[in-house]
Amino acid sequence: MGIQRYGMAVRLQDDKRQFYIDNHANPWPEVIQELKQIKVQNYSIFLKEDFMFGYLEYTGNDFNGDMAKMEEVPIIKQWTKLMIDCFNPFPNNKNNESWVMMDQIFFME
Amino acid sequence: MGIQRYGMAVRLQDDKRQFYIDNHANPWPEVIQELKQIKVQNYSIFLKEDFMFGYLEYTGNDFNGDMAKMEEVPIIKQWTKLMIDCFNPFPNNKNNESWVMMDQIFFME
Repeated sequence: MGIQRYGMAVRLQDDKRQFYIDNHANPWPEVIQELKQIKVQNYSIFLKEDFMFGYLEYTGNDFNGDMAKMEEVPIIKQWTKLMIDCFNPFPNNKNNESWVMMDQIFFME
Repeated sequence: MGIQRYGMAVRLQDDKRQFYIDNHANPWPEVIQELKQIKVQNYSIFLKEDFMFGYLEYTGNDFNGDMAKMEEVPIIKQWTKLMIDCFNPFPNNKNNESWVMMDQIFFME
């Protein structure tokens, strides 16, 4: 299926801002290893005000399945819980505790 | 300088939403040509609610200079004006009429 591109958005709590930034400057090696193993690549997170945008590329053939499987790995569960605790919901997405997926409306190779 | 990654954010006016989407599904070839010429690549735009997030990679050595030069090309000026007319400012960035640049806080190859 080639390279699939995903964009996602969430907000950051003010009092967890530095914790989140520090952890992403020095992420747990196990998290990086798992992401690479499920064929995630070229993954960036950007911050402006309290808004965050994530961009990643995936070269496998079942993104949701692979992500769900990865979330079962104990150390990933631990990392994810710590990070989700830093989030505020994206506007109009109060029921979503984590990243919301966005629609790709433009691509130039 | 290798690949430099840029993330940027803006909001979309409701009544210009479809116009913006349609134009980015079928962008003017001259715009794509100019972007490639200044060494922009792998450029995606994502939309969720009225928030847009742009991700692009640049392989030149003067991003701001190259962007400024590109904006002087008449057909680019024309395109940019049409697109800026679709925008609402990003929260807390009322003085910025177009995309605001974000800070990259995470990268995984």
